[in-house]
Amino acid sequence: MPRPEPHVILFHSAASDPRWPDAIRRALPDFEVRTNLEGIAPEDVAAAVVWKHPPGMLAPLARLKLIQVIGAGVDHVFTDPFLPRHVPIARLVDPGLTARMSEYVLLHALALHRRMDETVRAQDERRWEFIAPAPPARTCVGILGLGHLGLACATTLRAMGFRVIGWSRTRKADLPFETYAGADGLAAFRNACDVLVLLLPLTAQTQGLVDSRFFDDLRAGAALINVGRGGLIEDDALLAALDDGRLRHAVLDVFRQEPLPADHPFWTHRRITVTPHNSSATDPDTAIEQVVENVRRAVSGERPLHLVDPSAGY
Amino acid sequence: MPRPEPHVILFHSAASDPRWPDAIRRALPDFEVRTNLEGIAPEDVAAAVVWKHPPGMLAPLARLKLIQVIGAGVDHVFTDPFLPRHVPIARLVDPGLTARMSEYVLLHALALHRRMDETVRAQDERRWEFIAPAPPARTCVGILGLGHLGLACATTLRAMGFRVIGWSRTRKADLPFETYAGADGLAAFRNACDVLVLLLPLTAQTQGLVDSRFFDDLRAGAALINVGRGGLIEDDALLAALDDGRLRHAVLDVFRQEPLPADHPFWTHRRITVTPHNSSATDPDTAIEQVVENVRRAVSGERPLHLVDPSAGY
Repeated sequence: MPRPEPHVILFHSAASDPRWPDAIRRALPDFEVRTNLEGIAPEDVAAAVVWKHPPGMLAPLARLKLIQVIGAGVDHVFTDPFLPRHVPIARLVDPGLTARMSEYVLLHALALHRRMDETVRAQDERRWEFIAPAPPARTCVGILGLGHLGLACATTLRAMGFRVIGWSRTRKADLPFETYAGADGLAAFRNACDVLVLLLPLTAQTQGLVDSRFFDDLRAGAALINVGRGGLIEDDALLAALDDGRLRHAVLDVFRQEPLPADHPFWTHRRITVTPHNSSATDPDTAIEQVVENVRRAVSGERPLHLVDPSAGY
Repeated sequence: MPRPEPHVILFHSAASDPRWPDAIRRALPDFEVRTNLEGIAPEDVAAAVVWKHPPGMLAPLARLKLIQVIGAGVDHVFTDPFLPRHVPIARLVDPGLTARMSEYVLLHALALHRRMDETVRAQDERRWEFIAPAPPARTCVGILGLGHLGLACATTLRAMGFRVIGWSRTRKADLPFETYAGADGLAAFRNACDVLVLLLPLTAQTQGLVDSRFFDDLRAGAALINVGRGGLIEDDALLAALDDGRLRHAVLDVFRQEPLPADHPFWTHRRITVTPHNSSATDPDTAIEQVVENVRRAVSGERPLHLVDPSAGY
């Protein structure tokens, strides 16, 4: 008797919505959804649905047809030295995740535009310090990273009246706002922004991109929002820029180590807002459809959606 | 020789944009714009453009045809016991003021929806406390006061996905969201809101509307934004509701006394955000057009725009 087609979906998530396994079971009733390999032949696994899987977990899955990451960032996948390089890796483009991210960036762009950082300090000192409300058009929000999330944030910010510009590694054509590209474009871009939003993937090229030099020649009063990855920023350079006034405030949702260690200076810095990597999250309700479609495509030999380019790392 | 037609515009503002007098001069070159009556016959004043004028200032202006308030709220006008009751009083409906107000309310509704109050406290304690990002549709924002500003805020909030309901003293028909009206509707309205936005005028009817009873039976985790007037709220009742948990947080932009006195308990309460009455402000650039139009109407005997009903007080 020939071995049956792979019929198991292996789910592993270090930290995610607990509804995921049941959501997959309900949506893909023809598959057996497992959260471990006990009693299962590794070659029966057709697809792995993962978030921060343990290194080596995927290597024995000899007939694996899809690695579906249940998030937008895939940098952690490539930290697995035993990653089966021939298997397609897909990331999620989840409308819920995209909307939550846009809302977070809008919230903090509005707060920085309205100088809520200074307002909170004035309250701490019981100071009535009138700050005239200005139209959002007077604040230029620069988005680093013009992928799906960056473009969605740009749309939301522009709808609220902000001036928006963008930067990407390679030039994007036909966007309805001003863009800069490549290492050459970065200095001019930086100098034009009042609020910088980091939405870049973490790759060998972007690791530590926001270093000490990055903070030179920013506009007076410039502020930063990091919703990309902690590794984009050199922590010490950020602290120095806040302390010497090159940067007014930083809103940080992602960190080199998460949870952010209790003794990290970011927690107590008066010019830093720390949020616990909750700018956005994948919502099984809105994302399950894409997992279903990608499993279907993978087992029927079609090209899955939103594949990652392993050479670029995103 | 007959006395010439009144040709003076008297400008008085206790605290406003310093560009106003010149903006009026440029826009109404046929009038003499004065900030005091020195050397001027009171009966030559055609229109008074005012914000918190001193009581009695308007009484001697025998041929005054318009009292143009350069703001949306007119409660302070009626505190003048010598107010000439026969003169039309107009308030501003300024697109800049309306937009800034919508942005402020959106900012703080998003912050409350995302539980930034709890996030800031977690940061103070170096606690990594994940709060799952929820769709705005799960937060019901209730707007008290469905005038020009309330409706603009509703539109902005609904565009961002919030559930919006409204309350007004008299029923408003044909709004694209659920509304409640009158004293009878207030309890049901209150119980349906996660975030309450006060945008009512201050009148004899609304003075102290937000009293101790108001905070009974709110939804768990309900929060308040006051961008109306300080007198809408009983300060002690608000503090009690925050302290006993009926109310999660209050964002206050307006106060019974402004600037808020340094010894007022609002400054230091951990569940209160104080902003210095800067949720919005009239912008001469966008508002001057309406002043010009109203002066033209007043001197030519037409009905000015946005007249106040003295019997209602708004």
